[in-house]
Amino acid sequence: MRNTQPPRTPIWRAIGNALRQDISEGRYAPGDKLPTEAALADRFGVNRHTVRHALSDLVEQGLVRTRRGAGAFVAAMPTDYPIGERVRFRENLLAAGRTPEKRLLLIEERAATLGEAKALNVAEGEVICAYHGISLADGQPVAVFESLFPASRLPGIANALSENHGVTAALTQIGVADYIRVSTRLTAVSATATQALHLQVREGDPLLRSTGVNLDTDAQPVEYGRTFFAGDRITLTLES
Amino acid sequence: MRNTQPPRTPIWRAIGNALRQDISEGRYAPGDKLPTEAALADRFGVNRHTVRHALSDLVEQGLVRTRRGAGAFVAAMPTDYPIGERVRFRENLLAAGRTPEKRLLLIEERAATLGEAKALNVAEGEVICAYHGISLADGQPVAVFESLFPASRLPGIANALSENHGVTAALTQIGVADYIRVSTRLTAVSATATQALHLQVREGDPLLRSTGVNLDTDAQPVEYGRTFFAGDRITLTLES
Repeated sequence: MRNTQPPRTPIWRAIGNALRQDISEGRYAPGDKLPTEAALADRFGVNRHTVRHALSDLVEQGLVRTRRGAGAFVAAMPTDYPIGERVRFRENLLAAGRTPEKRLLLIEERAATLGEAKALNVAEGEVICAYHGISLADGQPVAVFESLFPASRLPGIANALSENHGVTAALTQIGVADYIRVSTRLTAVSATATQALHLQVREGDPLLRSTGVNLDTDAQPVEYGRTFFAGDRITLTLES
Repeated sequence: MRNTQPPRTPIWRAIGNALRQDISEGRYAPGDKLPTEAALADRFGVNRHTVRHALSDLVEQGLVRTRRGAGAFVAAMPTDYPIGERVRFRENLLAAGRTPEKRLLLIEERAATLGEAKALNVAEGEVICAYHGISLADGQPVAVFESLFPASRLPGIANALSENHGVTAALTQIGVADYIRVSTRLTAVSATATQALHLQVREGDPLLRSTGVNLDTDAQPVEYGRTFFAGDRITLTLES
């Protein structure tokens, strides 16, 4: 058999386009559940296989995400977050048109483990200040973090952190005028139960873990931090 | 009650230290299952709560990972993988002391989607060459990738890819002497069933997704690639 028709848009693509238009026009907002495959098959007069093909194309494009057993959802538009020498949560979020906010979980002084001591260039067991919190964009949690500071080199850091919002402001207050990031390390991990609770994701959901050290202008470490970003809410960007 | 004893190493930390020593001495190798919590509790004469505390500290340090219902395993030592202007799988792996290998899954010529066309600076629907494969380190799969090339600007790319091992060698063969990476985008995603199969991980396990464009020396895109790294096998590093 020969097909003498001119090439046409495949039906699954047409369905994908229609759904994309629904999303771009705001009929379905980020986080909304899409109709079930059966309902979409009815709406477009096709079988569920075709609907699945259309949805998987939208997943591929990052517009939709599916959760096993729960259906398809409009993906939250992830916030672009530049990484490089100057990693500033507040500036990054403002540049992306989002409202940044930090929620304090805990500030404690404790002894540095071997790895922490090495990263901060202090002796093992020396007192460090640990600042735990949640980073939010437009009120939605996007990351949980633990920032560690060498308490002896940075007197007053615990107070400054508890009074201010954010690391940059606290460091400025105690006299650290500038700092730059070296040695960022990135990998993907599964959310623990506690992280899932703070980020309002499910335990086991993928998180992007960023570990890095910030140095002051004398190249002394002033912060060693670990941040866990919700994978579907933040895209780290690196321009070279 | 007052405790007049001098401060001692907490018992959970002592257990963690003993297990760390077992790992560093090779008694348990990367990938090995550790004894059950009950067995460890017997070995150290403590309760399971204390064992869990010790294990969670080792998880925190990245030495051990736990799988719900399956127990605790010695973490594979992740390979450091530098990202920046020059992203070269082969060079990166050799520098990390690993043996790089690429396994070809598929080379196909197909029409570019809108997003792909934009990234490669070609017209939508123009023919591109798609190269799908698996990247291995010392025989262990560490990433699955899809590399897309503008077929019209790079005649012979499909053949060069099928004859060579790796993108750099194929591009060199067809006359692209050098290329640099711009606009890397990173996030964390869950492994699909197919990705899990290729990477020998479980469906839903965390993957680090890297998307990026490589430009030739005339600033024309020569490759648009998406790579999915197994989170527990690769740590991307960024030095500034």
